[in-house]
Amino acid sequence: MAKTSSDTILLHSEDNVRMALRAFEAGDTVDGLTVSQAVSRGHKIATREIAQGDAIRKYNQVIGFASVPIAAGDHVHTQNCAYRADFERDPEPCAGAQPTDFVPASERAQFMGYKRPDGRVGTRNYIGILTTVNCSATVARMAAAHFTPERLAAFPNVDGVAAFTHGTGCGMAMDGEGFGMLQRTLAGYAAHPNFAGVLVIGLGCEVMQISLMMETYGLKEGERFQRMTIQETGGTRKTVEEAVRRIEAMLPAADACRREAVSAEHLSVALQCGGSDGYSGITANPALGNAADQLVRHGGTAILAETPEIFGAEHLLTRRAETPEIAEKLLERIRWWEDYTARNKGVMDNNPSPGNKAGGLTTILEKSLGAAAKGGTTNLTGVYEYSERVTTPGFVFMDSPGYDPASITGQVASGANLVCFTTGRGSVFGYKPAPSMKLATNSEMFARMSDDMDINCGVIVSDGVSVEEMGEQIFQEMLDVASGKRTKSEDLGFGDNEFIPWQVGAVM
Amino acid sequence: MAKTSSDTILLHSEDNVRMALRAFEAGDTVDGLTVSQAVSRGHKIATREIAQGDAIRKYNQVIGFASVPIAAGDHVHTQNCAYRADFERDPEPCAGAQPTDFVPASERAQFMGYKRPDGRVGTRNYIGILTTVNCSATVARMAAAHFTPERLAAFPNVDGVAAFTHGTGCGMAMDGEGFGMLQRTLAGYAAHPNFAGVLVIGLGCEVMQISLMMETYGLKEGERFQRMTIQETGGTRKTVEEAVRRIEAMLPAADACRREAVSAEHLSVALQCGGSDGYSGITANPALGNAADQLVRHGGTAILAETPEIFGAEHLLTRRAETPEIAEKLLERIRWWEDYTARNKGVMDNNPSPGNKAGGLTTILEKSLGAAAKGGTTNLTGVYEYSERVTTPGFVFMDSPGYDPASITGQVASGANLVCFTTGRGSVFGYKPAPSMKLATNSEMFARMSDDMDINCGVIVSDGVSVEEMGEQIFQEMLDVASGKRTKSEDLGFGDNEFIPWQVGAVM
Ligand SMILES: [Ca+2]
Ligand SMILES: [Ca+2]
Ligand SMILES: [Ca+2]
Ligand SMILES: [Ca+2]
Ligand SMILES: [Ca+2]
Repeated sequence: MAKTSSDTILLHSEDNVRMALRAFEAGDTVDGLTVSQAVSRGHKIATREIAQGDAIRKYNQVIGFASVPIAAGDHVHTQNCAYRADFERDPEPCAGAQPTDFVPASERAQFMGYKRPDGRVGTRNYIGILTTVNCSATVARMAAAHFTPERLAAFPNVDGVAAFTHGTGCGMAMDGEGFGMLQRTLAGYAAHPNFAGVLVIGLGCEVMQISLMMETYGLKEGERFQRMTIQETGGTRKTVEEAVRRIEAMLPAADACRREAVSAEHLSVALQCGGSDGYSGITANPALGNAADQLVRHGGTAILAETPEIFGAEHLLTRRAETPEIAEKLLERIRWWEDYTARNKGVMDNNPSPGNKAGGLTTILEKSLGAAAKGGTTNLTGVYEYSERVTTPGFVFMDSPGYDPASITGQVASGANLVCFTTGRGSVFGYKPAPSMKLATNSEMFARMSDDMDINCGVIVSDGVSVEEMGEQIFQEMLDVASGKRTKSEDLGFGDNEFIPWQVGAVM
Repeated sequence: MAKTSSDTILLHSEDNVRMALRAFEAGDTVDGLTVSQAVSRGHKIATREIAQGDAIRKYNQVIGFASVPIAAGDHVHTQNCAYRADFERDPEPCAGAQPTDFVPASERAQFMGYKRPDGRVGTRNYIGILTTVNCSATVARMAAAHFTPERLAAFPNVDGVAAFTHGTGCGMAMDGEGFGMLQRTLAGYAAHPNFAGVLVIGLGCEVMQISLMMETYGLKEGERFQRMTIQETGGTRKTVEEAVRRIEAMLPAADACRREAVSAEHLSVALQCGGSDGYSGITANPALGNAADQLVRHGGTAILAETPEIFGAEHLLTRRAETPEIAEKLLERIRWWEDYTARNKGVMDNNPSPGNKAGGLTTILEKSLGAAAKGGTTNLTGVYEYSERVTTPGFVFMDSPGYDPASITGQVASGANLVCFTTGRGSVFGYKPAPSMKLATNSEMFARMSDDMDINCGVIVSDGVSVEEMGEQIFQEMLDVASGKRTKSEDLGFGDNEFIPWQVGAVM
């Protein structure tokens, strides 16, 4: 970062906007500028005259174009800054890929995890009740509700029995993208290393048949994976009773699982942001990116997602791709998204939410540049479809919406065993079976919502803490949480309502 | 019905298939036919040779066309019967509309309901916690969970405090169809007569802003309608505490509500089917149609929905329309659906689910003819969009998917204060705030799932009970349940996981 003061920040010497670190009124002077209109914290102020049609630059990147002439001191936002998709963004595949400075295997960081029979490692030890369709949601919750803390007291190594219910699974095409995504998501959960055991409950007549999922993903019935349907079992009461009986039978083996020291190679972290603000891109996201770089150097996996939020910044990722094929797969996903939004009568630039805009983010491109900062600087080693199992260590990208619960559901299905979630406006969010660390982008929100936030990255601006220092702290917290340290959202009891498979296609 | 035996049923003398009332093996003889292949109960047997391309007729309606030559005694199903959309179905608007034989106002049936300030009448007395977005789901459930039966014991006239959570509300376009549908659904619940009070909880930065919904639908803050956001209130704990405090303040007024005798005019019934089988169209659906006719004669409202399930039978509804405009609105919705499914790469005939097909339903048209039977015979007095407030008494149609929870969510938002749900395969389903009566289509399933089913319409086939007799029984049960009689699904505790607003448009 080039130049800061306590009241505004200039992110790069070539930029023509400064970011306001406090609210200004018309007539205020700051850093040699006279502010023309009231400007909220997190918003942008023009540092010089910008002609109509000229680029607005932040992070030394183009975030939009002046839609009217802009004077020095003007508030730069949606009223005078517009997005244009047509300017040059050369993907230059692999142009920026560099050798990764790996930590030697013997010196890599470790955490205390649960080794599973398939070689993967869990950070938590849950029993999961999955559902194929909304019609089995209530039965699954009733079965999970049986396992109160009192009834689980005899099984101290089990983190809980959790039901994963959702709104879809029927009234959908029996093949095609939407069906495939839901099936892949359920299969990813069924095999997730944070489960000691899984029971899948269906209704019986739904489109999303359990047997086809098992066949497609090679899942076998056994002690750790069981299934049943309500219609075969004879209704609600009998199904709940039978589900309780089967989970009771799983508990002793689940409770016998023990944490042991494993390499950070087994840590797979979902990078996520939600309720972003003007600070996201300069505090929590770059700090998380720094931690992601460390994780990658220690052999672990960092999963960036949220395709609409890297839209417009995809050239920054393709240049880091290890192979042209990886770059092409990302560009193919971007093209898919252009088609997906067009045929659903939307546009990609709809993405900044009212909260995002109130927080000072003007265009999707500005948001994307800040969002992509979570991904650090190492090579892009893979691009995956939604909920697809991630098999390449390093920094990878998984296609998903930006919508937090839908995106994280996919990241966890793909194998993430820890979630790192940056938020500026204050998302209260937690997840099962993967714990979720929440990183505040600004000190004011951290103070206001301290019950919900794990780490305050706002100190980068408020206290002059360096991004590197913050990244080190986040990486250490990743290892601690992976080893069992409870997050704020776990203490509050989140994670039973945030399983939201991305729903694509017509509901019929 | 023309001609039955104990083993097969011929639904109309012009039909060329009989329905199997038990399973047959190859070589069995029945009703003068030698069965060529094994045929399951509920499936169809050809009564005579049918040339390739000729129509298959059931209910004296075309359900499909022979895709290969069919011999007498052959099993008629997907392997030899295909759907073709191109045959003539003249909508003839209003051609079949007839004067309704209304019961004089002074002689109309009554039920014991809760009169609300706006003149509408509730069949239950809940306090509802609505959510704008998935990000407030856990907080809403935590607040609802505070109100245990023990804590509510002092308020015996309150049916419960229920949270309505869902998977959407952000990561969506800020205008357009999907946004409008969700907003309309939430507004419909906010004003539903089965609530004595409503609290809406948002996160704060979501696309679905509470203030815009209130402005659009004229909702005013007051004792019966309150709102809050997590970000304004300062996080999870403070929001749950404040929500509990506000609901505690609503409870005395809610508990002071009393049932009083009101005309059946105030009964608005959602007609629904789910997990249909070959019996649906000959037992439960016509019996419910008979009850719907009685309800309409007594001044009430019967809401048919599930557009994909009347697809192909829409001409039977347009002919009953009271005005050409009503018929045209239905045809416009059908055209919308053709576009919706096409741009989502689906087709309308995808609808019969694996369970439907296993139960003997071959084409969407066969299913539609059986599904439309729920709507009885009276004039179509209105066609409504999803979740739109129904304002015309009589038999109306509301556009929705066939998917049960999404369709019923819309019907309840539109004002239904009772749900009648027919099921053949055995859907275990219940709803809040409107109670749901479940009508079994066959006696075998009723016996197997008796804990979940309220009424057995299978006796029409198994015991020779007439459709009229069954319709009378259903209408009486509607009045009883509306007056407070508890349904099976209420006793089981359903209704906290089935609020599924129809999600249209890209998730971003
Ligand atoms: Ca984000
Ligand atoms: Ca977002
Ligand atoms: Ca997000
Ligand atoms: Ca149906
Ligand atoms: Ca249905």
